[in-house]
Amino acid sequence: MHRFKLTIEYDGRFFCGWQRQKKAFSVQEAIEKALYSFCKQQQILVYGAGRTDAGVHALGQVAHVDLEKNFPPYRIMDALNYYLRAYPVAILKVESVSLDFHARFSAKLRKYQYQIINRRAPLVLEAGRAWHVIKPLDADKMHCAAQLLVGLHDFNSFRALRCQAASSIRRLDSFTVVRHGDLITLEVQSRSFLHNQVRIMVGSLALIGEGKWTNSHITQALTLASRQAAGPTAPPDGLYFSQIVYEDNLNQK
Amino acid sequence: MHRFKLTIEYDGRFFCGWQRQKKAFSVQEAIEKALYSFCKQQQILVYGAGRTDAGVHALGQVAHVDLEKNFPPYRIMDALNYYLRAYPVAILKVESVSLDFHARFSAKLRKYQYQIINRRAPLVLEAGRAWHVIKPLDADKMHCAAQLLVGLHDFNSFRALRCQAASSIRRLDSFTVVRHGDLITLEVQSRSFLHNQVRIMVGSLALIGEGKWTNSHITQALTLASRQAAGPTAPPDGLYFSQIVYEDNLNQK
Repeated sequence: MHRFKLTIEYDGRFFCGWQRQKKAFSVQEAIEKALYSFCKQQQILVYGAGRTDAGVHALGQVAHVDLEKNFPPYRIMDALNYYLRAYPVAILKVESVSLDFHARFSAKLRKYQYQIINRRAPLVLEAGRAWHVIKPLDADKMHCAAQLLVGLHDFNSFRALRCQAASSIRRLDSFTVVRHGDLITLEVQSRSFLHNQVRIMVGSLALIGEGKWTNSHITQALTLASRQAAGPTAPPDGLYFSQIVYEDNLNQK
Repeated sequence: MHRFKLTIEYDGRFFCGWQRQKKAFSVQEAIEKALYSFCKQQQILVYGAGRTDAGVHALGQVAHVDLEKNFPPYRIMDALNYYLRAYPVAILKVESVSLDFHARFSAKLRKYQYQIINRRAPLVLEAGRAWHVIKPLDADKMHCAAQLLVGLHDFNSFRALRCQAASSIRRLDSFTVVRHGDLITLEVQSRSFLHNQVRIMVGSLALIGEGKWTNSHITQALTLASRQAAGPTAPPDGLYFSQIVYEDNLNQK
């Protein structure tokens, strides 16, 4: 068996999310079908670094797959992009990796971006690709409040009720909020995230930005460890799974 | 009569361009129809600062219109966005201006952006919104060559054969080329541009970036003043009419 690491971009609007589902079309299924078309190998399983929900985009999702034949990586990349041409998903990079590389378990750091467009006019060029917030948001206050979430915390208030992770303790490495004109960009990184964690954190910070919440609401939400204590879940439109970092020695075979 | 200045964003893929045409739907027609739906005034004419071709986008096109009634600007903006909701066009701002303001003739400076994505993988999130160039481009060489176009020149080689401007002399104020990862952004500003000038300049700079052309080809193209001497016309997908600058005193009534 030969293991390959795939770096993937997709437009989340078209898919039911990353993970295979019985009655809906996922990114995982699209890639597995393209791999089958390419090499006709039975039982192809693509493992992703993280599951993204319907409507969530990726700039650099990572997955791995085991193939019987040791194809040159560029051939796999070109073939996959050929078979995926009808769908808004592209394979940016294919690398040969050792069998200890695991897209999910070897990940040292995951990075997400979230885009808010803060203006009265409806979205045009960024429709479906950003959260449209009309009420003026104070991005500096949001950045300041985001720092309360950085570090080791129980994020039980900031995860979907259906989240299946055994522990809700996570360590955020950084969380920045920057405004350029109408565009507010949030960037957050951690080794791993809970289900909907980024979107609930963004929904909570938007309440800070609007002036409805103060920093003490964030502190309290962390302490109460209950979903009702946090803000609403921000829409998937603005969320991008942007990068996954691995230890260098695992990347190359 | 009361004159209003409109700032407009649109996705050029949906339209035959800015200007009204008999057999195709333009941005101008969309806005004129929305204005009619709002105020039922006969013979509404919207004057744009520049004509964009089919597929060319705008982040900040400017137009003016004369209305019989002195509506509050925010009412015009909300009404237009309501009537335009089915189309990828949004009115970002409406301002009351004096009758000497003319969107086209009062413009002091026009700014265009052009986006190239330079990678092997097909475009997904930026499909239709950038030019996909597979061959590696040297953005520093492109920036260097772009400086040869800055200043006062005869741009006859760099305009469409069907360009109707009486003179092909123009003065470029600046032209920058910057790479961030796969994305190459070109920004150019001038008081006015010839038909297809930005796209032909970008097509020529791409030949420099590829290494097929050297700076002397650019100098020669300027000297020869003939369309065949310049490079190909880059596709409309990557072009954005980004900003028009007016003298401050004309902006406010």
